[in-house]
Amino acid sequence: MKLENARGTRDYLPEEKIARDRIVDTLRNVFETFGYSPLETPALERFDVLSSKYAGGSEILKETFKLIDQGKRELGMRYDLTVPLSRVVGQNPNLKFPFKRYQIEKVWRDGPVGPGRYREFLQADVDIIGVKNVAAEAELIEIALVAFERLGLDIVVKFNNRKILNAILDFAGVPQEKHDATILTIDKLDKIGKDELKKELEQAVRLDEGQVKKLLELIIQPGKNEQKVVALRLKLKGAEAEEAIKEIEDLLAIADFENVIFDVSLARGLSYYTGTVFEAVLNDNKIKSSVAGGGRYDRMIGALLGQAREYPAVGISFGVDRIFAALDKGEKDKTVTKIFVIPIKTYKESLEITRKLREAGIKADMDMQGKGPSRNLDYANSLGIPYALFVGGQEIQEKKFKLKDMKSGKEELLGINEVIDRLKS
Amino acid sequence: MKLENARGTRDYLPEEKIARDRIVDTLRNVFETFGYSPLETPALERFDVLSSKYAGGSEILKETFKLIDQGKRELGMRYDLTVPLSRVVGQNPNLKFPFKRYQIEKVWRDGPVGPGRYREFLQADVDIIGVKNVAAEAELIEIALVAFERLGLDIVVKFNNRKILNAILDFAGVPQEKHDATILTIDKLDKIGKDELKKELEQAVRLDEGQVKKLLELIIQPGKNEQKVVALRLKLKGAEAEEAIKEIEDLLAIADFENVIFDVSLARGLSYYTGTVFEAVLNDNKIKSSVAGGGRYDRMIGALLGQAREYPAVGISFGVDRIFAALDKGEKDKTVTKIFVIPIKTYKESLEITRKLREAGIKADMDMQGKGPSRNLDYANSLGIPYALFVGGQEIQEKKFKLKDMKSGKEELLGINEVIDRLKS
Repeated sequence: MKLENARGTRDYLPEEKIARDRIVDTLRNVFETFGYSPLETPALERFDVLSSKYAGGSEILKETFKLIDQGKRELGMRYDLTVPLSRVVGQNPNLKFPFKRYQIEKVWRDGPVGPGRYREFLQADVDIIGVKNVAAEAELIEIALVAFERLGLDIVVKFNNRKILNAILDFAGVPQEKHDATILTIDKLDKIGKDELKKELEQAVRLDEGQVKKLLELIIQPGKNEQKVVALRLKLKGAEAEEAIKEIEDLLAIADFENVIFDVSLARGLSYYTGTVFEAVLNDNKIKSSVAGGGRYDRMIGALLGQAREYPAVGISFGVDRIFAALDKGEKDKTVTKIFVIPIKTYKESLEITRKLREAGIKADMDMQGKGPSRNLDYANSLGIPYALFVGGQEIQEKKFKLKDMKSGKEELLGINEVIDRLKS
Repeated sequence: MKLENARGTRDYLPEEKIARDRIVDTLRNVFETFGYSPLETPALERFDVLSSKYAGGSEILKETFKLIDQGKRELGMRYDLTVPLSRVVGQNPNLKFPFKRYQIEKVWRDGPVGPGRYREFLQADVDIIGVKNVAAEAELIEIALVAFERLGLDIVVKFNNRKILNAILDFAGVPQEKHDATILTIDKLDKIGKDELKKELEQAVRLDEGQVKKLLELIIQPGKNEQKVVALRLKLKGAEAEEAIKEIEDLLAIADFENVIFDVSLARGLSYYTGTVFEAVLNDNKIKSSVAGGGRYDRMIGALLGQAREYPAVGISFGVDRIFAALDKGEKDKTVTKIFVIPIKTYKESLEITRKLREAGIKADMDMQGKGPSRNLDYANSLGIPYALFVGGQEIQEKKFKLKDMKSGKEELLGINEVIDRLKS
């Protein structure tokens, strides 16, 4: 037996898991504050559900862990939380719309492994189904702003609209069959820069010089959000462009926050988006890392369910592992324990005291091996437990116990209720 | 595509997930109060780790979901949380002992499906590694008592000691090769009753009449914990029996709670237990359902890691799905939302008010579709949202808003801070 993790997976020891739980708790709290309720779905899905052509697409399917159950049924491990959500909507016709749900669970992709790239990762998705207007997008963008503020990460939210992109492509004369490839290439602008983008559009997508010039003119726009809208309105005509510009203006009116940026080059890979797309990016010059992203996908659920009906839907997905990596600096807690009780030949009485601390909601631990005080202090120290409490025979008689602040080294004689007050404050 | 869950799996819609999260939050809080820190490990493990003969055993292995990654590596989905814990201990030689960790995650078994029997289920495990004496067992039993009290479930904790069972088997003259089968059969006493047990021991395990008589005499004991100990001490001799009786007495001295019961017939299936075994059983005459269980397994980790060294270890596992089923009665919340804001042609102002509620930590939602008041009330009603707040033009001018208690129907005009106070109390 090889003592190893499965390739592309990792453990989170307490030191990391405590920090990770804090992220998840914060996200969960923000999502619920906005009126989203939790949903849980299984890790395993029928393979035919995952492989529907309206689901994640063929690239994702190549990376799907596939297996077979005892009944020879083909199953797969979910690669996202949107397909399970769509299935749930289809199976539960009595759901009330708008259906606002969040889901924080693992997904799996059997893809390339590298620094920060795992085969199992935690996703936190918030979706709202049943609202056609951009108030829904605005709410999800606001959730991202509030969540990252609470997490202490400085971000900007960039957004765009797929319909504007379509109108720009038409304006530039890009033929319909090259739309997808062009959009995927444009999406790389931030990473590869203008010159490289130009080259790729000409050489890989095979657009002509005139098309590329017109494209870049509209996609790379300086100035404020409003200026960009004005510039687009001057150039773009037609119903789709007008609708898109109206949506962008409405969205800007609601999500009127400084760090919300209309970015005409933002496309996002997935083909199921039908309107607004958005992305939260770390506001750090070095890494332009996306930590959350999403958009509107009005046609995907209906298509997946094989229904003629449209389900207006907008979603945002937070990459918990990337957030964890971005926050992964500074000192971390190795334990949840706040106080370590050290019995000095007083096991029974120490247990009573520890019980009192625990009943007061204090995370308390105690030596149960009869070790000496110095070995116990070493243990508390090695875990970074902030307080130690000594319980000897005399202390019990006097009902005063020595509380040691492990950081400052300061010691005080306190009654048990004083200890509780100290730790609660 | 068939719109179905994978066989043996299920979704938890908000109504159920909210209740389920409450269970998990309660458990987590209790575990942390006792000084246990969280650990997270991946769902996927190398198959050779899962299939070690010191791990779950051949029965479990038959029910393990097996798969192969792109690199043709054999993987399996974990069937418990003890094997991953052992691997983590082996891979992290710098862990401080006692290592007290909890882990609340899914496990998978490709076994028979039935009412309440799923192929994916949530386990909540608490383990302490590095403590040889029964103070560790006592702590886990206390955790079970505290946790079930907080959850509002009436339980008893039954415990026994594997060494006592061994001594009883020796006393009854059961040959070594029949020990395992005898223990597995005895474990069924609660389910099948004394007469059936007798028959199975004679016919299936093939013990003779004298052996069975002696066995039953010691295993089925009436009376108080102390009386049982006295009875055993009279009959059983030898080092193993003495050690076991000492452990049982020590444990009873620490875990001196009314609903802790020494049950000489309790065995628990797993072969890796080496000392105390225990089980929390619903104190309900109808279903004698086990909702948590565990025991001491001092030799398993070392054996699994191929080390000569012993790792003293005790663990308890809470069956979250069974707890959920036991609590699954009465009215449930369909949403986390506490208040629904209804704009009457005041979208922008209503959004501001909703933002204030959310900033105050209140789970608030609002209509974003411009529906009329009565349709909005229907929506709030159908989700069981406890309050609705009407925001019309006049209300904004007067800074007083109509708060409707959806249950009583009572309406009041309140300022926004009064609304916040009302909902916070």
